[in-house]
Amino acid sequence: MAMSSGEVTLVGGGPGAWDLLTIRGLRALEAADVILTDHLGPANQLEDFLDLSGKEVINVAKLPYGKQVAQDKTNALLVEHALAGKKVVRLKGGDPYVFGRGFEEYLECVRVGVACTVVPGVTSAISVPAAAQVPVTHRGITHSFTLVSGHLAPDHPKSLIDWEALARVGGTLVVIMGVKNARAITETLLGSGLAAQTPAVVIENGETPRQRVVRATAATLADEMEAHSITNPAVYVIGEVAGLAHP
Amino acid sequence: MAMSSGEVTLVGGGPGAWDLLTIRGLRALEAADVILTDHLGPANQLEDFLDLSGKEVINVAKLPYGKQVAQDKTNALLVEHALAGKKVVRLKGGDPYVFGRGFEEYLECVRVGVACTVVPGVTSAISVPAAAQVPVTHRGITHSFTLVSGHLAPDHPKSLIDWEALARVGGTLVVIMGVKNARAITETLLGSGLAAQTPAVVIENGETPRQRVVRATAATLADEMEAHSITNPAVYVIGEVAGLAHP
Repeated sequence: MAMSSGEVTLVGGGPGAWDLLTIRGLRALEAADVILTDHLGPANQLEDFLDLSGKEVINVAKLPYGKQVAQDKTNALLVEHALAGKKVVRLKGGDPYVFGRGFEEYLECVRVGVACTVVPGVTSAISVPAAAQVPVTHRGITHSFTLVSGHLAPDHPKSLIDWEALARVGGTLVVIMGVKNARAITETLLGSGLAAQTPAVVIENGETPRQRVVRATAATLADEMEAHSITNPAVYVIGEVAGLAHP
Repeated sequence: MAMSSGEVTLVGGGPGAWDLLTIRGLRALEAADVILTDHLGPANQLEDFLDLSGKEVINVAKLPYGKQVAQDKTNALLVEHALAGKKVVRLKGGDPYVFGRGFEEYLECVRVGVACTVVPGVTSAISVPAAAQVPVTHRGITHSFTLVSGHLAPDHPKSLIDWEALARVGGTLVVIMGVKNARAITETLLGSGLAAQTPAVVIENGETPRQRVVRATAATLADEMEAHSITNPAVYVIGEVAGLAHP
């Protein structure tokens, strides 16, 4: 089977503000015939920076998909339009390969013979803490940071994370999608030897005008998040770097 | 003391190709009176995308600095030009707050009362593996990834990393600045229980025309890096995601 003349580009849209898109990402969007978005990244600001005439914009978060799972439907749409000869951009929040399911879309393109390239983006895991002046690394303080998805509680049978080992690594811990499980996660870390006074900070709606920052410790983070009614999207950081700002 | 009318903007320049700069970063460069660069990110391509007339460009990697350490000299230059009323951009490789010493520059600005903002960038730790189609996360495979600086060997007295704990975390491990210590790092991980057959990959000069990719396992990585004479800049990834590409 010959390769179609269409193609798919997975574009990392960054944390939300459209001007944190890369120039390569913007050019891919300008050249696109079809743009698949969801509610993440700069999806709601497309008209602010892009001439959409002649382009089809599909919000895959709003598709009726019956028994088919959303990701399968998204994969099918990407491939269908590319095989029809279209330049297709899949605009994603953050970076396509950081908890973005972008690699699933890449593999589907490879499977059916559609050319697929990835344009990396500014990940929320680093840029959202930075927006609150929390650096994920700082000389003499930490030589590592770990990004974890908190969507599964530590005792969930499908959890792939050894939280006890994480408590011992000694670097910065950044948790995304972890609002619901904040208490279980911090209790597990503390029970595994993490110091109760370890600084912590949560950033809600980071890099948007509605950004809120709440500072705490590993021991008080879950209480503070409840007291301030923190909801998704939120990122929290546990580690010495969370206490460095504004000396 | 009143705030000066000058200001400092720390701009993440991304992994190297200038079009992986963000739009916000480009605008800051366009508005700058003074640009401080080193050899990282798009520093060597400034003329390709920027009108430099009227701008002063200072390469801080080339300064003679005698007994003063380079970072102190950089901090002093940032502040000196901002206090003179200039718009100063510090262009950095990758993201300013990922092993970039950007937060040291921010703290110096705060200390002397100079306004300082940070524009996040595309980190090499994620984008360089992506350029070799290695996603740092993949559903069902890993729920975490850890970025580590490998510039200190595991047995170095100043190392802040518990490599034995890292071997147990069970996620993706991305090592930057770790060419020299690749053998010590992999031997430590293997001695701490990491499976010898864990896939590994090293990417040299990622996101440049000279990019080279060498695939290996945790047990063979150091040998393969030697056999292919891998030198800095290079990023290596150890984890199941390193074996996913090109099914």
